[in-house]
Amino acid sequence: MDQQIINNLKTLSLEMINRAESGHSGIVMSAAPLIYTVYSRHMNINPKDTNWLNRDRFVMSAGHGSALLYATLYMAGENITKDDLMNFRRFGYKTPGHPEVGVTPGVDVTTGPLGQGMATAVGLALAEKMLEARFKLGEDKPHSLFNYRIYALVGDGDMMEGVSYEAASFAANHGLNNLIVLYDSNNVTLDGNKKITFTENVSERFRAMGWHVEFVKNGNSVSEIDAAIKKCQNSPRPGFIQVVTTIGQDTDLAGDNKVHGYVFNVDEIKAIKDKLNVPHDSFYVSELGMNNFKEMIRTRSDKKYEIWSKDYKEYIESRTDFNINDLQSISDENISFRLAEDALNYIGNNEKQSLRDTNHKVMQYIANNLFNFVGGSADLATSTRAHIDDSKDVNYQDFEGRNINFGVREHAMGAMLNGLALTGFRPFGSTFLVFSDYIKPAMRMSAMMHLPVTYIFTHDSVNIGQDGPTHQPIEQLAMLRATPNLIVYRPADAKELIGCWNTIIHSYKSPAALIISKSELPIIQTSSIEETEKGAYIIRKEHDILHGIIIATGSEVHTALHIAEELYKSEGLDLRVVSMPIMEEFIKESEEYQEKILPFGVKRVVIEAGSSYGWHRFVYNSKYLITLDNYGTSGTRDEVLSYVSYMYTDIKERILRLFK
Amino acid sequence: MDQQIINNLKTLSLEMINRAESGHSGIVMSAAPLIYTVYSRHMNINPKDTNWLNRDRFVMSAGHGSALLYATLYMAGENITKDDLMNFRRFGYKTPGHPEVGVTPGVDVTTGPLGQGMATAVGLALAEKMLEARFKLGEDKPHSLFNYRIYALVGDGDMMEGVSYEAASFAANHGLNNLIVLYDSNNVTLDGNKKITFTENVSERFRAMGWHVEFVKNGNSVSEIDAAIKKCQNSPRPGFIQVVTTIGQDTDLAGDNKVHGYVFNVDEIKAIKDKLNVPHDSFYVSELGMNNFKEMIRTRSDKKYEIWSKDYKEYIESRTDFNINDLQSISDENISFRLAEDALNYIGNNEKQSLRDTNHKVMQYIANNLFNFVGGSADLATSTRAHIDDSKDVNYQDFEGRNINFGVREHAMGAMLNGLALTGFRPFGSTFLVFSDYIKPAMRMSAMMHLPVTYIFTHDSVNIGQDGPTHQPIEQLAMLRATPNLIVYRPADAKELIGCWNTIIHSYKSPAALIISKSELPIIQTSSIEETEKGAYIIRKEHDILHGIIIATGSEVHTALHIAEELYKSEGLDLRVVSMPIMEEFIKESEEYQEKILPFGVKRVVIEAGSSYGWHRFVYNSKYLITLDNYGTSGTRDEVLSYVSYMYTDIKERILRLFK
Repeated sequence: MDQQIINNLKTLSLEMINRAESGHSGIVMSAAPLIYTVYSRHMNINPKDTNWLNRDRFVMSAGHGSALLYATLYMAGENITKDDLMNFRRFGYKTPGHPEVGVTPGVDVTTGPLGQGMATAVGLALAEKMLEARFKLGEDKPHSLFNYRIYALVGDGDMMEGVSYEAASFAANHGLNNLIVLYDSNNVTLDGNKKITFTENVSERFRAMGWHVEFVKNGNSVSEIDAAIKKCQNSPRPGFIQVVTTIGQDTDLAGDNKVHGYVFNVDEIKAIKDKLNVPHDSFYVSELGMNNFKEMIRTRSDKKYEIWSKDYKEYIESRTDFNINDLQSISDENISFRLAEDALNYIGNNEKQSLRDTNHKVMQYIANNLFNFVGGSADLATSTRAHIDDSKDVNYQDFEGRNINFGVREHAMGAMLNGLALTGFRPFGSTFLVFSDYIKPAMRMSAMMHLPVTYIFTHDSVNIGQDGPTHQPIEQLAMLRATPNLIVYRPADAKELIGCWNTIIHSYKSPAALIISKSELPIIQTSSIEETEKGAYIIRKEHDILHGIIIATGSEVHTALHIAEELYKSEGLDLRVVSMPIMEEFIKESEEYQEKILPFGVKRVVIEAGSSYGWHRFVYNSKYLITLDNYGTSGTRDEVLSYVSYMYTDIKERILRLFK
Repeated sequence: MDQQIINNLKTLSLEMINRAESGHSGIVMSAAPLIYTVYSRHMNINPKDTNWLNRDRFVMSAGHGSALLYATLYMAGENITKDDLMNFRRFGYKTPGHPEVGVTPGVDVTTGPLGQGMATAVGLALAEKMLEARFKLGEDKPHSLFNYRIYALVGDGDMMEGVSYEAASFAANHGLNNLIVLYDSNNVTLDGNKKITFTENVSERFRAMGWHVEFVKNGNSVSEIDAAIKKCQNSPRPGFIQVVTTIGQDTDLAGDNKVHGYVFNVDEIKAIKDKLNVPHDSFYVSELGMNNFKEMIRTRSDKKYEIWSKDYKEYIESRTDFNINDLQSISDENISFRLAEDALNYIGNNEKQSLRDTNHKVMQYIANNLFNFVGGSADLATSTRAHIDDSKDVNYQDFEGRNINFGVREHAMGAMLNGLALTGFRPFGSTFLVFSDYIKPAMRMSAMMHLPVTYIFTHDSVNIGQDGPTHQPIEQLAMLRATPNLIVYRPADAKELIGCWNTIIHSYKSPAALIISKSELPIIQTSSIEETEKGAYIIRKEHDILHGIIIATGSEVHTALHIAEELYKSEGLDLRVVSMPIMEEFIKESEEYQEKILPFGVKRVVIEAGSSYGWHRFVYNSKYLITLDNYGTSGTRDEVLSYVSYMYTDIKERILRLFK
């Protein structure tokens, strides 16, 4: 029966690819026994309650194997129709080219860009451990409300990507033994046999990182794969199973890299069907096979589901004090709390403190109000100050804490934050702004998956000085602002910071990049928490006749205000200053509001210590952009600012010339 | 004597940091014996001819240890003054915050962002192997004109970064035994003891990847480090030496993460000097020590330098036919050849071919004319078609070829291309445009180091269709255009492609991102190789009265031309079409030229199948941007274009509405 279902998964996949006229036949033939073994023997899921909080997760990191995943989910009874399978890779169906969370029942993570899935799976595993530690049950019960596992299927491409290494190293250090990775080791990549570029001993590498490693010689053997999974389940370490397979197994192109993206035609599929003993009928599905498959899953899962549902109900009923909301914040998007003036009081009156320190205090306030606010830093917490003081660090023995030491692994941090957010946490991760470059691929996934991840980036311009151009961001703000559904925040002071956090917390469907200066930025009398949430507002009104407008963000707002004040006194120039902490938000405001803030026909100049790219939208031409389009240099703060002509006097002079 | 010089390097470094009031004391104390052993016992360099082609390279991947590197280069006799040391991290001196190539004699690579140095060192090692294979000498001579080694010093941060793993895996696969990496294993990172996040067995991991691994228990022992280096030198595999050290060695903060960025004050330095037996004099340098150090280097290196100079001279004299230019193209920037009409003939008349196929042919033409044009792909050569047909792939046995299989390692590919370019190659690397995200950090280094690396990105918009949003670029063009000194090219046809390549080849100081459609793009009658080099030009002149201008790039130029033609016929709308294959180039042109192409006061609309971000510069407001600011979807090409309202008819209608 096992073999019959596996063969059916294979032929279904090939037919899907054939009809789509595109897809990846190589992996569906090699990995079918792997995914089948996981679903038939181990996955605890309930298609009637697909998003069951305690379900096992499956991550198809080798996302190009999507056809196989959809065929499996279909036969497992998820809410996917044969019509969906027949319209693989077509618009409007539940079977997109690569797996997309939210589109297909049973798909837990969007995958495709290699390595991302594996690293996100590590985040999912960390998240499960953190839930497990937070929702402990009574003595006579299972340890916790949460006790699910994460399975991931990875290919050679995933293994070669640096982000998967980073995450794997973290997983072992943190003892994430709820994670089991099956490596479809088929020896072939798109461009050829993997020996031309990938000859390392992957299993030994994982062992060196501290994983429990199993080796399955016969990738067609369900029992061998099953035995390996069981051994991993009993290990205190994350499990890695290298399964030796043949790409394009059971086809004439078996073992050949050409099969990777090959589309078998109808006749070829018929021949394969003959070989696999599958009837020729188009999109044939064995009723018996399907029922058996569902039954295997049901028998195991339903028992667990039933017990869990009871525990869950009891848990909610027994802990009316504070835990209901907590638990709901894991599954629910409705957060009622807002930061307001009281948060400001919380920060204290230390006007001269660095904005990163102010942010540190605001984060404590949020942590006190938001149970699922957790996060950490890529080894720069000491500098970014993004840390929850009143909590422990998570580690392999104890996952109750809220602080995570991601290590010098910016990219994996991003992918792991995605895993945390997919589980219901509101995670943050921090590093220097310039290193957002390293995280970009994972940030794109946050944005595409609509995950409320907050990226906190400090050291936000050349004025960091001495570390030099490699550490001085220039183009990063543009890169982030150009990314769809990623919202960039650059507050000028504590009040704007609070306004930004309000918007962040209530933007359930978008990740945030919160850009924080390490400079001392005193609170501006005329700044406003509420106005910040409109994206841009008048922070200095003209006295009488509006001669021009300075638009600025972050630390440059202070520069703008001083210049406006000085030029009014000395030259009678009557300038408005507009602070624009959230460009994306302002653009979404009504035309009336935009016109009110930036009236038509009035000269405007922009001051931002970053690339001009993207700012032309608000000014007449390039002359009105006081921005930075070249790399900085190493030197004291003043030396650097002087080198890039960005001293206070440089800026003031340019503005005077433009408006005089 | 060894110890005396090491101690001197340590105290010099601490004094530099003290005077700069910033820097990284931890690593300079732990790694001093490592760098000293490399320079005193092994490095073949000649400070009188610092850029000697056959010199050994040293890469300070842990770039925050710059003070130690400068102190070493100073004592080794490179052209650095004590004044430079005393003005560490100050503008105008040769001692920037992190090492910068071109600023400091003896610094071969700009480093700082962790992992980059290690991966670039792998590129340098590959480059040496490729030079070695290209400049073989006669029977009675050493094997080749080139036989130098690459040494790299790495820290825990480098080891945690994915890019260093990717490169390390490649290095072993390619048998780069000319590379020796010394790992300053000091057990501490910025945020604390590394056990909180990094407990893997790094040595075992490198062994699993196929490296020759040595372990030095006593990081203070020159003889142990020396012995390990010698063993690596005799191995057929790249060498990795884990040296156990103590961060902040010889200070009161030894072993404490606080010492990472600690600045010792004058009194503390005095106490350390007492301990190390170094006189209290400010910036004390032992004459005797310095002379001894120089002498050790000189005795060894001068012999090699002398023989090499003779071989070099003989080589040049004996091979007047073609090799002089070849060798010079390795060291010289003056390339005389230009692609012109004959390149076009070379492509053939197959008008309907995909632009990536056309590019494939142009690349063969370039390869025939440019000896040092080499490169490869991150496992997508089959799709990107960036491959030199008339040449082999390099592999561990044979480095004569020009094609490199980087594997599914986009990020390391970028860093390795930097290593190739630093050695005098004109390298290219290719993948899909969307995966430029993965390479961004390395591209920034290309741009900052002014390296002529060509990144070839195909599959350049949503119209790739079925693979879905994870594979459809949106914001990537903006990200790349915003990056200082990286020039983005998006040609519309074969002629523009040739014009782009001309600009690329003659832009010695800038990396290029060449964006290539996979669509069939016929040659446009009115396109022009020469005009392309101006960045933008009129590809369709208005017939009579200029009603408006359509600006477009790449495949959208074809759309624009068809629309202009149709609207002229049906509506009498007289539109100009401006093709803008190189935005950065057009912006640099004279105001007169810009005004000629885009006359003031004429309505303009932009068509580009990517983010609007950055395009406002050329239009009145957002309504005139026919661009894409959201993620795509999975479906057939038409389904996707319809989903994002980017069908031909959608665009035509919008233009008609705007200009009518």
